[in-house]
Amino acid sequence: MLEIRFVPYEEIVRIRHSNIDEYKKLQILSDICRLNAFSAVKKAGSGHLGSSFSALDILVFLYFKEMNVLELGISNPNRDIYFSSKGHDCPGQYSVLFAAGIINYDKLLNLRRLGGLDGHPDIRIPGIEANSGSLGMGISKAKGMALAKKMKGLKGRIFVMTGDGELQEGQIWEALQTTVHQKITNVNVIVDFNKIQTDKPLKEIIDLGDLEKKFEVFGWYVKRCDGHDFRDLEDAFSELKEITDRPKVLIADTIKGKGVSFMEGPTALEQGNGLYRWHAGAPDDDSYEAGFAELIDKINGHLRDVSLEPVKLELVETRQKGRVRLKDVAEKVVNAYGEALVEIGKRRKDIIVLDADLSADCGLRPFENTFPDRFIENGIAEQDMVSMAGGLALQGYLPIVNSFGVFLASRANEQIYTNATENTKIIYVCHYAGLIPAGPGKSHQSLRDISLFGALPNCIIVEPCNAIETKKALQWCVDESRELCMMRLVISPSPRTILFPDNYEFSFGKGTVLKDGEDVIIFSYGPVMLNEALKASEILEKENISLKVVNMPWINRIDKTWFENILTNFESIFVLDNHSIYGGLGDFFLNVLMESDNLRGKRLYKLAINEFPECGTPVEVLKYHRLDAESLASFIKTKIFK
Amino acid sequence: MLEIRFVPYEEIVRIRHSNIDEYKKLQILSDICRLNAFSAVKKAGSGHLGSSFSALDILVFLYFKEMNVLELGISNPNRDIYFSSKGHDCPGQYSVLFAAGIINYDKLLNLRRLGGLDGHPDIRIPGIEANSGSLGMGISKAKGMALAKKMKGLKGRIFVMTGDGELQEGQIWEALQTTVHQKITNVNVIVDFNKIQTDKPLKEIIDLGDLEKKFEVFGWYVKRCDGHDFRDLEDAFSELKEITDRPKVLIADTIKGKGVSFMEGPTALEQGNGLYRWHAGAPDDDSYEAGFAELIDKINGHLRDVSLEPVKLELVETRQKGRVRLKDVAEKVVNAYGEALVEIGKRRKDIIVLDADLSADCGLRPFENTFPDRFIENGIAEQDMVSMAGGLALQGYLPIVNSFGVFLASRANEQIYTNATENTKIIYVCHYAGLIPAGPGKSHQSLRDISLFGALPNCIIVEPCNAIETKKALQWCVDESRELCMMRLVISPSPRTILFPDNYEFSFGKGTVLKDGEDVIIFSYGPVMLNEALKASEILEKENISLKVVNMPWINRIDKTWFENILTNFESIFVLDNHSIYGGLGDFFLNVLMESDNLRGKRLYKLAINEFPECGTPVEVLKYHRLDAESLASFIKTKIFK
Repeated sequence: MLEIRFVPYEEIVRIRHSNIDEYKKLQILSDICRLNAFSAVKKAGSGHLGSSFSALDILVFLYFKEMNVLELGISNPNRDIYFSSKGHDCPGQYSVLFAAGIINYDKLLNLRRLGGLDGHPDIRIPGIEANSGSLGMGISKAKGMALAKKMKGLKGRIFVMTGDGELQEGQIWEALQTTVHQKITNVNVIVDFNKIQTDKPLKEIIDLGDLEKKFEVFGWYVKRCDGHDFRDLEDAFSELKEITDRPKVLIADTIKGKGVSFMEGPTALEQGNGLYRWHAGAPDDDSYEAGFAELIDKINGHLRDVSLEPVKLELVETRQKGRVRLKDVAEKVVNAYGEALVEIGKRRKDIIVLDADLSADCGLRPFENTFPDRFIENGIAEQDMVSMAGGLALQGYLPIVNSFGVFLASRANEQIYTNATENTKIIYVCHYAGLIPAGPGKSHQSLRDISLFGALPNCIIVEPCNAIETKKALQWCVDESRELCMMRLVISPSPRTILFPDNYEFSFGKGTVLKDGEDVIIFSYGPVMLNEALKASEILEKENISLKVVNMPWINRIDKTWFENILTNFESIFVLDNHSIYGGLGDFFLNVLMESDNLRGKRLYKLAINEFPECGTPVEVLKYHRLDAESLASFIKTKIFK
Repeated sequence: MLEIRFVPYEEIVRIRHSNIDEYKKLQILSDICRLNAFSAVKKAGSGHLGSSFSALDILVFLYFKEMNVLELGISNPNRDIYFSSKGHDCPGQYSVLFAAGIINYDKLLNLRRLGGLDGHPDIRIPGIEANSGSLGMGISKAKGMALAKKMKGLKGRIFVMTGDGELQEGQIWEALQTTVHQKITNVNVIVDFNKIQTDKPLKEIIDLGDLEKKFEVFGWYVKRCDGHDFRDLEDAFSELKEITDRPKVLIADTIKGKGVSFMEGPTALEQGNGLYRWHAGAPDDDSYEAGFAELIDKINGHLRDVSLEPVKLELVETRQKGRVRLKDVAEKVVNAYGEALVEIGKRRKDIIVLDADLSADCGLRPFENTFPDRFIENGIAEQDMVSMAGGLALQGYLPIVNSFGVFLASRANEQIYTNATENTKIIYVCHYAGLIPAGPGKSHQSLRDISLFGALPNCIIVEPCNAIETKKALQWCVDESRELCMMRLVISPSPRTILFPDNYEFSFGKGTVLKDGEDVIIFSYGPVMLNEALKASEILEKENISLKVVNMPWINRIDKTWFENILTNFESIFVLDNHSIYGGLGDFFLNVLMESDNLRGKRLYKLAINEFPECGTPVEVLKYHRLDAESLASFIKTKIFK
């Protein structure tokens, strides 16, 4: 059995109040926070450990030594403010806030769970000062906070942590220029310079060159230090405190995964043949046990050095080892996409695949390895990637542009629009489409992407539901579409493999009946929501209600005749969007219904998300938004029996 | 009478083929291009002269001396490629392309007219290599083109011109980093360093600091030269040609408005008390005559020096001098907005107004001058501005964020989303909303902004139609709204002042009947489209069709009871959107119709734009998109009599 254990608050208080060497105490606290973050992520099943660990010593130093926030309280207007611009290092920050008595134990044990701690920082959590998770915004936001303090005559310094890869985002450089010009000096940027991005070294993705010189020439006061040495951090921050004529940046040299030997940058890269595997995701059971043992030994070793008792751990969960995870067995549309890219790449030499540091997540590695010359790694610079694709398209190539939907559709929206006005063909692939996985939270769940592409007059939006359809959809976009395309892909393993009838065809503007029915009809798309629709159909069947389930991969191109035919015998139509209630398939259906003399007057019910998406497990979050099968089935019943 | 004259192509050919000193010839060509750009803008009634003139000598040098494009032809794959990233300098480029025989005379005479030359570059125009007008994308696009050439083994260099203020955009710095890392060396960036932005010196807006050092530390080869000295340009470009291990940037020191004494940077700033007035817009009649006289004297003086005949000019248009322009007499909602800002600013000390170098256009100058401490000039860095507003809001201020709708809603979309997830209140004002003015073209016409905000669950979108409603709307957003707001404002003068009935109220979710009617009903918003609707009503009245016209400023919040009541006696509903056909008021109406048992089944017709917006005069473009009063009236007739 696997045991998941934490260091409880009382034990941390014991150490905080102990009369031992200050730096030693910081070291012990830091390793305890590492251990708690490690266990929290293991318990949650996902989360970012690599950069939680690289940033942790800095955070512990800030909260327990440098900042006034524990003294003044988290609501005092004169408090120092710290927040992380990268945001994915929040398991580390949460464990520090727990150690500081700001976040309670129950919350910590419910990382990435509904009502627990969001997968990326959210100000509804005590001690969190800004929402992040989408990169590059932190310095701008810090600048606004600092100006507000200045205008109100309030005390307190602003500290904002950025990643190093994050410095590839253009907004960073906007902010570096404006902060200096606007004479906002009370901003302390800390670069967690751990030198590894999602899974490759920064130098391989997009090298930053001479970072110190860059900041200097942008007019900032620059200090560099060892981000794991508390004395060095102390010197650095006291030096920065004296500088009042310029904004300041501390480049902290750190080690990704610091604290657990096999997760530490250089070692881990070597063991991974150049790939770093501890950026995101929970450790497997053996790694958890090994890492836990290493951390607890270290903590207790330090305690022994200063003649303190070893920590009493609390066993929080016991689980079967080697549990089968959905992701190890289920179909993933993104894998099918990756295979299809390679197949198509073989015959279409004009295809170029672009990536913004999410190659593995977006299923691009097979293409990257097979056609390195036609794979462009652009780093975390989505706007640049999209406009570069525009240039390639103008010169006759067919670019396939990849990122998570939130980042691509939203961050690079104006670049996508400008390319579209050139009427070149480009395929944008919005990965991580929709509500699930819900663990990373609202910075990652893409529920607006259809609405963000929807008003482009020459863009076809498609979302496939299984491996077969994914390959057909990509092929259609590449070979047949005369307009630009946006493909939406769910990133999580499919809760079931959506099965097609024998006569399945991928036919423009037309959907596929997955389950016949006579009483009611529901349309949806993608594996996550179709699974719920099918389950709802199974539930209703037991009550003798026959729900027809239709897969509709063409979000904004609907064949009117097909639609009229399929709706002939239905008065009530349900459409289940994996998207906001506005701008999705439901709204495109409303338009077709209105335009058709045969359909106008039929009742369409939109099932979608009309608030910010919640964080939690798929089951929790689907249920919360009343989009799980049970909720769907009971909603349908109330509507047809009303 | 005012005479608008051009130098015809034959005259340019005579000079191009003359056997005179090469540099002298370039100078003459350059001034001829200035003159033709000057006349084209005067004829068009709008256009950007200041930076057309600062960039012109460089363009003339590139096309007539440095590049191979005239020799190989504009479609040869081995051609050198030039395009402007800033784009608004296209009147200059068009006149060069005319002088080069690439654009015909008829096109040049129809700048900013339907079927003529777009107000910003568009690849449908011969010789234009990329669409621009939205800033900061050029280097990324150039990089894509250069890589394409490299992969295809094609010859030809890539030249891309940027503005200096444009370097405030973050995407520039993304591209500078990635180009170097990706080893793309065949990119020549030219910075038109004229040191003046929209109407103030760059050093006052957001200073760039040591530009040469910045580029150098980003790994680029940097050369600086006098952008008005052909010998200096020749030396610079031949030096850059030798550099093959790095991408290259030429910082060309130029003078905004160069060539017409009173438009030249330093002088013009002095005469304008620190404000530069020649960035955009056609010169008034007297200035046109004075500038024309100066340019033609200069040209003929040079010709005399080399014993050539003076140029024969062609008179293209004669018009009454001192014509009354709509903008001098009509109501402008943006002016009312500017006044309201000051009024509200007096009693609400928590308001902070943010601008991205469009202060005058957005009506912010009165606030800027009255409350300089609560006005933040952020330069052309929309993303940074929006996140900064987020930081200010987190600290208790109420930021009012301004830019053109295209730039704000689209460029900063993810930043707006992230702020929204924090549930702070911020007011975003999307200026230049909708189709009109249509002269600047599709990079500026904002037809997607409602769709880009529409899926934010906590955002209220309002567009007022006259001065009274603008003040009420702003006051409502500031004082009453508990959610964040997006205000859309038309930037052009109102074609008529929309008059309200005596019982007018600005009431949440409810519109105002502007003209009663019994047969048909049309809803719209904002002065431009309401004017067309009212005119359509007047046309239909003559045919005894009574069209009720309703102003509906609440785009995404519709009071259902009010809606049901007003629609009681109407079976057909028309909704006229100043927006794309998707995501606008029409779609929100469709949702309410579907949800109401009293309304479902009624026929709603959406009148909106279902393609990229055209460039031209308001009359031309409204008619082109069939949204002018005549088209509306005849559409309504066909639908009600069908």
